[in-house]
Amino acid sequence: MAKLCRGPEPAKERKPTYHREETVTDFFKKSMDLHALLHGKISVEGKLRIESADDLSTVYTPGVAAPCRAIAADPARARDLTIKRNSVAVVSDGSAVLGLGNIGALAAIPVMEGKAMLFKQYAGIDAWPLCLESQDTETIIQTVRQIAPVFGGINLEDIAAPRCFEVEAALQDVGIPVFHDDQHGTAIVLLAGLMNAAKVTGRELTDMRVVVAGAGAAGTAIARLLRCVNFDPDLCQPIREIVICDSKGAIHRGRGDLTPAKLELLKYTNRADRAGTLLEVMEGADAFIGVSRAGLLGARDVARMAPKSIVFAMANPEPEIMPDEAKAGGAAIVGTGRSDFPNQVNNVLAFPGIFRGALDAAAPRITEKMILAAAHALAGSVDHPTADHVLPSALDASVAPRVARAVAAAAEGQS
Amino acid sequence: MAKLCRGPEPAKERKPTYHREETVTDFFKKSMDLHALLHGKISVEGKLRIESADDLSTVYTPGVAAPCRAIAADPARARDLTIKRNSVAVVSDGSAVLGLGNIGALAAIPVMEGKAMLFKQYAGIDAWPLCLESQDTETIIQTVRQIAPVFGGINLEDIAAPRCFEVEAALQDVGIPVFHDDQHGTAIVLLAGLMNAAKVTGRELTDMRVVVAGAGAAGTAIARLLRCVNFDPDLCQPIREIVICDSKGAIHRGRGDLTPAKLELLKYTNRADRAGTLLEVMEGADAFIGVSRAGLLGARDVARMAPKSIVFAMANPEPEIMPDEAKAGGAAIVGTGRSDFPNQVNNVLAFPGIFRGALDAAAPRITEKMILAAAHALAGSVDHPTADHVLPSALDASVAPRVARAVAAAAEGQS
Repeated sequence: MAKLCRGPEPAKERKPTYHREETVTDFFKKSMDLHALLHGKISVEGKLRIESADDLSTVYTPGVAAPCRAIAADPARARDLTIKRNSVAVVSDGSAVLGLGNIGALAAIPVMEGKAMLFKQYAGIDAWPLCLESQDTETIIQTVRQIAPVFGGINLEDIAAPRCFEVEAALQDVGIPVFHDDQHGTAIVLLAGLMNAAKVTGRELTDMRVVVAGAGAAGTAIARLLRCVNFDPDLCQPIREIVICDSKGAIHRGRGDLTPAKLELLKYTNRADRAGTLLEVMEGADAFIGVSRAGLLGARDVARMAPKSIVFAMANPEPEIMPDEAKAGGAAIVGTGRSDFPNQVNNVLAFPGIFRGALDAAAPRITEKMILAAAHALAGSVDHPTADHVLPSALDASVAPRVARAVAAAAEGQS
Repeated sequence: MAKLCRGPEPAKERKPTYHREETVTDFFKKSMDLHALLHGKISVEGKLRIESADDLSTVYTPGVAAPCRAIAADPARARDLTIKRNSVAVVSDGSAVLGLGNIGALAAIPVMEGKAMLFKQYAGIDAWPLCLESQDTETIIQTVRQIAPVFGGINLEDIAAPRCFEVEAALQDVGIPVFHDDQHGTAIVLLAGLMNAAKVTGRELTDMRVVVAGAGAAGTAIARLLRCVNFDPDLCQPIREIVICDSKGAIHRGRGDLTPAKLELLKYTNRADRAGTLLEVMEGADAFIGVSRAGLLGARDVARMAPKSIVFAMANPEPEIMPDEAKAGGAAIVGTGRSDFPNQVNNVLAFPGIFRGALDAAAPRITEKMILAAAHALAGSVDHPTADHVLPSALDASVAPRVARAVAAAAEGQS
């Protein structure tokens, strides 16, 4: 059990402890007990204690009128004089929570609280959960606009596709970063892992053929990000080939059943216009990236890929294929979304550093350049990548500051 | 300077320190320095530290799926398993901030942060400021509805009249208490002070003639509350006479210029239908209640009131009349909004206990009965009222728990 605390000490780095002896059911039980004990995992604390009438007159009325007037005269001073400098709203409509689906606003709160804890522990950010009553796209957009003044950033979370794309796109003009973590956070960590996996297996990213299974929020963001895998998006170098599959197989130009979001994907995937099932397009592929469902693949399917293949099977809590099966099929490197196997693709490696960097730079939005900078910094945080260590541990406290510096540098000159 | 801290120790009670040697300007300077140092007066903290992969799997995925599922199956469990049990949103549109007027959302943040600090220190409540982009009544109502799921209560703050009345009234069905503190908080503290002032000057509340100067949010709430000053609103006993004045004098039935809100006031004020200026209707009055502007009265005006009169001059930061002048005019008891004079009418005596009681009772709204219970508990927290001590100190940490118990008891049986 983590110890109760209120302190801001930095997290100690630890070696990951793989807990194969514990089942997911054990964690369910422990988590219920913990939540019933804590009644909420976060708290709001004053940074100072009011101990005299003078204190009250300084932090509150009449003294507080002075910073209020200063901000009224120059709104930019809100970043100097208030929590806006360091605050992020974690906003969800509860429509696509973990693997649980559309469980609604109230049931989403424990996840958003957990996210707020991670924001604080890894990046010193004051994050507050906002779970919205409505799942209507326009209502979500308008609500985020309304609550934006008090925040320095907005982390959209667990909002179903394609609504998440529309909400995020519509909010890019709000003046603070609005970032859908299920899309970009996952894509950033995956790209970092893929970079190091390429290095370990002696590949160049730009020579690779990649198959993505799952065309939801994460799959789409991954496919988009792999368009440009070098550091500078102005000199874009794509992966050699990406084919993205939904439940009906490869998304190709000959399909008559594609949604607008999937048609958009064809702008930067499947240039050779391959048709066929997932297993057919996996033939000879260098890497498989799964953001779909448990048990999608067997060892024999992996065996059809190129030698020393790379498998990221990120379905949660059960991956598309278990690591030992993937290795039996010839995979050289296997990553999952789980902490009990090596190479965990965990968003906590990205979002704290991304927002820390964006807040430090007072960036008005998170650009592709900042996203790529985060992926490169994350890949670079593993000094000597090996087959079982293409990504740092989710508990590594040194990652977020490193990512933050890269993101803040990439944000420079934005306005 | 208050000491930096993160601890939850209860505030120590102290004698009020009247700081007449310090001017309001001194507090402006100290407050600017403090705000520029802290960059926000509140922080969000995790209640525990993640130190292992096990911890992460318990507070976050996969374990967190268990409380999420439990709430999806029974939404009432959100109060048991999340911050909803203890969280309050402090919501403002920045349209009527302190005495500064319509300074907008960003400039209102320092006040709302201060309020959040007070919520924590006096009532252990996790309060988060939400300053809204829009000042449109319907937009404010819809935004509060959207963000309600994650909160156990909504404190509306510094919203201009008459919008504040409409917003509050429209939100009474949201399932959690929605309470406009500028109205009811002020009215509760004033009523408590008036009860003890009546006791000290040998009056019965129900025999008193009261004049209220100012027909905005606070003046309206005071007039409404004084309709029933006994404990049980079902057996309503009003003050003998209340006349409320705006800038044009007494609000009476013969005036052709009354807004709907002011016409509404006539349902429970000025039964004798007195016309005239403020000074005319003050003739022979037992109590003056000012929520208007600095320097409205002189000693000679107070001298026209009944002997041993009661004056609550609450304009901020400069009262309608300074205490020494009011006493020169014959006032037996003088209260102001300021901490540097006796009998400070400070909302912090009410709102922490009101919300603590409402949260403890899981009340769906704050009723008139709860409001009256708060006023009576607050008056009762002064054991031996004297002319200079009709209200407890704003720093008295014993007040909020006492108010909370009374409010929770009054909430019982609500659904």
